[in-house]
Amino acid sequence: MDHIDPAGRTANLADPYTGQVVLMNRFVVPEGRDDAFMALWTETSEYFRAQPGFVSLKLHRAVSADAEYRYVNVATWESAEHYGAPHRTEEFRRLVTQEGWHEFPSSPTLYELVLEHSLESAQ
Amino acid sequence: MDHIDPAGRTANLADPYTGQVVLMNRFVVPEGRDDAFMALWTETSEYFRAQPGFVSLKLHRAVSADAEYRYVNVATWESAEHYGAPHRTEEFRRLVTQEGWHEFPSSPTLYELVLEHSLESAQ
Repeated sequence: MDHIDPAGRTANLADPYTGQVVLMNRFVVPEGRDDAFMALWTETSEYFRAQPGFVSLKLHRAVSADAEYRYVNVATWESAEHYGAPHRTEEFRRLVTQEGWHEFPSSPTLYELVLEHSLESAQ
Repeated sequence: MDHIDPAGRTANLADPYTGQVVLMNRFVVPEGRDDAFMALWTETSEYFRAQPGFVSLKLHRAVSADAEYRYVNVATWESAEHYGAPHRTEEFRRLVTQEGWHEFPSSPTLYELVLEHSLESAQ
């Protein structure tokens, strides 16, 4: 069976950045496989939510079934270091190398927030 | 020159969905072209922020320069209908068919929020 490389499940971080960071991780989830995905995702998310520097986590599902990536999680961390540390543990390696993940390729990218508008602030 | 199809700048909406929706729109932005992208994006975002049902808008920039999509905007709308209506106007057509957008291909997908955790709710 294929080897899952934990590095492929971690967004690259080229430059030091000291503010909050936002991980967006897209997942390919075939129709009808939502429950299997949710079981794996929930176990992994519980690990991250317990880590220092965790701020928030949202999981989104595509409204249209033809989306290439049907699920996207958006996780905010206090800093790039807080984001990175739990991606370098044995527990992370164990979680993301589970055989079930082969079915759900992911594409993680780390972002910083450039600007934010809300209905309240816009008026 | 290539024709920009407004439909290609709008996420598909296959099924009726009555809750809040979240548009995630990823943009390819070459390094060094951030200012040109921001000028176009700001003009378009001002149009959307003035529409009924607009809730919030966040723009993110990738921390690492090797990201395929260096910018992602995340826009929340009261409903799929509120999201859709301003994508069917002549003003939208004018905004997104501007020649400058050729340089910044986008990939919009519409999502619903499945679940949300924050530091406060987790404790």
